[in-house]
Amino acid sequence: MAWFFSEIEPTNFFTITGEQAKHISLSLRMREGEELTLCCGEYVYPCVIDKTGKGEVKVRVLGKQLCDSEPSVELVLFQALPKGDKMDYIVRKSVELGVKRIVPFLSSRCVSRPDLKTIEKKTARWQKIALSAAEQSRRGMIPTVEQAVSFETAVKMAGGLENTVVFYECGGENPGKVLSPQTRELGIFIGSEGGFAPEEIETLKENGAKVATLGKRILRAETAPVAAISVIMYITGNMG
Amino acid sequence: MAWFFSEIEPTNFFTITGEQAKHISLSLRMREGEELTLCCGEYVYPCVIDKTGKGEVKVRVLGKQLCDSEPSVELVLFQALPKGDKMDYIVRKSVELGVKRIVPFLSSRCVSRPDLKTIEKKTARWQKIALSAAEQSRRGMIPTVEQAVSFETAVKMAGGLENTVVFYECGGENPGKVLSPQTRELGIFIGSEGGFAPEEIETLKENGAKVATLGKRILRAETAPVAAISVIMYITGNMG
Repeated sequence: MAWFFSEIEPTNFFTITGEQAKHISLSLRMREGEELTLCCGEYVYPCVIDKTGKGEVKVRVLGKQLCDSEPSVELVLFQALPKGDKMDYIVRKSVELGVKRIVPFLSSRCVSRPDLKTIEKKTARWQKIALSAAEQSRRGMIPTVEQAVSFETAVKMAGGLENTVVFYECGGENPGKVLSPQTRELGIFIGSEGGFAPEEIETLKENGAKVATLGKRILRAETAPVAAISVIMYITGNMG
Repeated sequence: MAWFFSEIEPTNFFTITGEQAKHISLSLRMREGEELTLCCGEYVYPCVIDKTGKGEVKVRVLGKQLCDSEPSVELVLFQALPKGDKMDYIVRKSVELGVKRIVPFLSSRCVSRPDLKTIEKKTARWQKIALSAAEQSRRGMIPTVEQAVSFETAVKMAGGLENTVVFYECGGENPGKVLSPQTRELGIFIGSEGGFAPEEIETLKENGAKVATLGKRILRAETAPVAAISVIMYITGNMG
């Protein structure tokens, strides 16, 4: 079932316009009689296509239900910028798995150090990836990808959250020991290829972060966030 | 630290030959005095390079320790063949995360249906990927990728295992309800893009498989095995 987000609450007969309409009628080639779901606020609206044109798609709204696909934990991924296009992959997978916000940051061991202009371009690109991943995984909201910040700023941002956990390649606690199933707001820090410098782990600890491990096997930079988010969703009861 | 597998137990002064020697001296450009680890049987052998040539690499064995990187659960991934090159990715990630054997199979909804010749080529390619992933993640053994089988054969193979769990996109139990932390041998079934046909789920149940879910968000074919293996490693105490 095709899944789209709408800023306006769809009622009775509703018209989808702009890029979304083009996507539905031209890319997906959806036609009259086909069903789609619109997601707006905390609700989902099953719809059937009434008429499609290049510029717009008219749908009939069939109902309104509370969206139940959002996890109970509000998860913020603080991801040290990895090399190449690995971040594209991390954004896509972490949105599929239920992350709410993604904050790329630059740690001392990041090899990739793009300038502001490149960062702005990449952030826009990652936000597009987040949108398409949110549609494909049928999320109840579009996770946001924020502009990359310094390690210090990331630590400050995490300070406002209920819990923070850093996954450290040199070892830490079992994730189940540092996370309660009732966790409702959590920030996780994941390193880039080079991992974290010991001083960065110290700074995170001084700011209240717990240090956890993902086990004895060495995970690639792009695998660690996927494994960590999967385990967190399990611990917080969002894989039931 | 570079990590390689050796079929012969390395003692005192040991000579690495063939492809592995070329890889060390030509691709990795490792030189005299650099350290590497050889893994043989259940042991790891820290070594230092004594001399490198195109054809061979002489190392001095510095010690011998039990390898502690293998998970306590012997996990067999029965993976319905996905489209394109997604299987390359699934093999790499599942080896990183600790799978012991990978058995690709053809379910009724598999779009990709390669002929025997292609299958043989692909199996060899996946085995190479498994080796390099095992070296990179510092596994204690090289997981095997078996030649693709029919769904029926996969079910029979799983019958010989202590436990079997199928992850079903249409819902099932919480993985923690169907798996004990003491699980020592487990086969998991993961579908391709089209998921499983209800009859296939029935067949698996009749053969003793438990049906589990990975939550309410729709995961891509290549994301599901990574999430499932991460959660299983956590439940069986292999992420502590």
